[in-house]
Amino acid sequence: MDIKAESLKKHYEWQGKIEVVSRCPVETREDMSLAYTPGVAEACLAIKDNVNKSFELTRRSNLVAVVTDGTAVLGLGDIGPEAGMPVMEGKCALFKAFADVDAFPLCIKSKDVDEIVRTIYLLSGSFGGINLEDIGAPRCFEIEKKLKEICDIPIFHDDQHGTAVVVLSGVINALKVVKKDIKDVKIVVNGLGAAGTAISKMLIAAGAQNMVLVDKAGIISPEDEFLGEERKALAECTNPEKLKGELSVAIKNADVFVGVSAPNILSAQMVQSMNKDAIVFAMANPTPEIMPDVAKEAGARIVGTGRSDFPNQINNVLVFPGMFRGALDCGATAITEGMKLAAAYALANHISESELNEENIIPSALDRSVAFEIAQAVKSAAVKEGVIRK
Amino acid sequence: MDIKAESLKKHYEWQGKIEVVSRCPVETREDMSLAYTPGVAEACLAIKDNVNKSFELTRRSNLVAVVTDGTAVLGLGDIGPEAGMPVMEGKCALFKAFADVDAFPLCIKSKDVDEIVRTIYLLSGSFGGINLEDIGAPRCFEIEKKLKEICDIPIFHDDQHGTAVVVLSGVINALKVVKKDIKDVKIVVNGLGAAGTAISKMLIAAGAQNMVLVDKAGIISPEDEFLGEERKALAECTNPEKLKGELSVAIKNADVFVGVSAPNILSAQMVQSMNKDAIVFAMANPTPEIMPDVAKEAGARIVGTGRSDFPNQINNVLVFPGMFRGALDCGATAITEGMKLAAAYALANHISESELNEENIIPSALDRSVAFEIAQAVKSAAVKEGVIRK
Repeated sequence: MDIKAESLKKHYEWQGKIEVVSRCPVETREDMSLAYTPGVAEACLAIKDNVNKSFELTRRSNLVAVVTDGTAVLGLGDIGPEAGMPVMEGKCALFKAFADVDAFPLCIKSKDVDEIVRTIYLLSGSFGGINLEDIGAPRCFEIEKKLKEICDIPIFHDDQHGTAVVVLSGVINALKVVKKDIKDVKIVVNGLGAAGTAISKMLIAAGAQNMVLVDKAGIISPEDEFLGEERKALAECTNPEKLKGELSVAIKNADVFVGVSAPNILSAQMVQSMNKDAIVFAMANPTPEIMPDVAKEAGARIVGTGRSDFPNQINNVLVFPGMFRGALDCGATAITEGMKLAAAYALANHISESELNEENIIPSALDRSVAFEIAQAVKSAAVKEGVIRK
Repeated sequence: MDIKAESLKKHYEWQGKIEVVSRCPVETREDMSLAYTPGVAEACLAIKDNVNKSFELTRRSNLVAVVTDGTAVLGLGDIGPEAGMPVMEGKCALFKAFADVDAFPLCIKSKDVDEIVRTIYLLSGSFGGINLEDIGAPRCFEIEKKLKEICDIPIFHDDQHGTAVVVLSGVINALKVVKKDIKDVKIVVNGLGAAGTAISKMLIAAGAQNMVLVDKAGIISPEDEFLGEERKALAECTNPEKLKGELSVAIKNADVFVGVSAPNILSAQMVQSMNKDAIVFAMANPTPEIMPDVAKEAGARIVGTGRSDFPNQINNVLVFPGMFRGALDCGATAITEGMKLAAAYALANHISESELNEENIIPSALDRSVAFEIAQAVKSAAVKEGVIRK
């Protein structure tokens, strides 16, 4: 099947991948007097007296906005807000199918950080959570940070944190297979956009102590100019051996490679220079940093990619539905580091030790039971951290 | 039944009156590759090349935002954006039930005209139309005017224009019953908020030549201070006899009274002072300007109210679903005076001459065939006026 042609055809047939339907009858006069005037005034007044009642009397408690500015859509780059919409609608369809979350796509016609922040803030009373999507770095960092400061509902940039959670989960399980401890291993992250930055922070939060981060200009160090706030902070707490140079330098004796960069950037020779039982996550899409068979031949023991046609698909559909399901169900006011770590461990533990092996370190992206387990873990963590609406 | 208590109970049960569902399957890997990555990229690129394709490849062509700032909700006044949401959700449920329009509620946390305008503009690429709702006057006039200037999709403030269309429709049919011509009659409009202002403009557009407009301070005249732009323009083209004073002065020898004001403001004496075959639309809610039986006893031949428990319910649910159905179906870029007039005549003509009588001047608010007829009329008018997306 020609996926491209078939998908375009289907999009014309679907006429939109989401739909807004009614949950209340409006057939009779009585129906209308209950769902609309005059009865509806009571629900309005109850919320006026206590704004938190909006989570009980409207759809807000199950509603997430999927928001983009269209500047970093898939691998297509800055294609504009309207052109980003098919991806946002697809994401909303996944939210519903995997976790019964009502998600609504919004594309903002602006690239200005403060304007995007203000727009989302002004709408935040209509939603129970905000999923930021496909917003280019470094603007995505600023937008998320500012929104977290002013909003009292969960803000989650999925390209960062969804990816980071699923990668950490894969690393946890891969390390179980090769019997190494995250505290002892050397991990190279290649590509420091939104995903690579968040992955690096998450691995550090989970205990990684020897991380080497590589961007287009090579291994980052605190002296580099133009790093930006996020990467500068990472440069200061990574690269303990003070390595300098390209990926080929960083990768020597590494135990784990995490690529969120570009096609074919990791050579067989580089994999050969890694430690025994090397773990390679080559997640560039659709062409990975190294093809799985090449990596395996060069000595990698475990290989993961972003693709569904190879084992170990590292796909953030495993994370975002359950993350928001959990956050919405407990009335979380934020998504914290603890909630993300809890989600990563829950996802990893979804695979029992007996089922765990080189070709099965992460659940299938189609496994519908994952979201429920992540939601449970996220809820527990939120309660523990006290980020629950009063 | 205690409507208030029952409605509140139902709102707790419904947990929101709208829901976002998926229109595409995401069960299998193939499903996901068509609805999401990698296939979705084709739809994105098609829209990138031609932004109008967003009306074919996303839900935009059937999607209307119902937007409020929560400042003039029902008769409750400024209750805040979150508290306005139950009304917006109810409106969305009606949009779906009456015209299969997907409507999504958005409450904006701002009362600043320019900020509200900017927020809606920035989101306008996600929708096929914008229904403004329950925004206080005079801000609603400015907001609508500015949005019309910068947006290329229909902008419709329902409290103004939905009400104006249904009132004009009622006036047209009532005048048929009493065999008077709109050009010859004296019409008094009492209450010059969003609805009263728009009703006055619409009646003038339909041919009314002797209008007397009354606000809290009495009959308006061009010399009045603090009228604001909208009412000043109306003052200049109404009140040909240069009457001065209260409603009791205005109403003498009037043929039609249209009230969108306050309870019990129209006395039996005032109705007695009207011309023979008087028409009284007393639309204050829930208590009208005069109760129908009192008006009838005082000599009114035709009485309409906003209530469903009396004959001739003047309800804008008769208008907004069909108005947007028509505008969306023809790819209208605006809703023009011509489209609104066409809707009013279509609504009036829905009642055949043989069925038309004092107690049946306007279709039932539950009549599902009305929206289709209005949509047809709106489409024809839009094509005629050339306000169709290229």
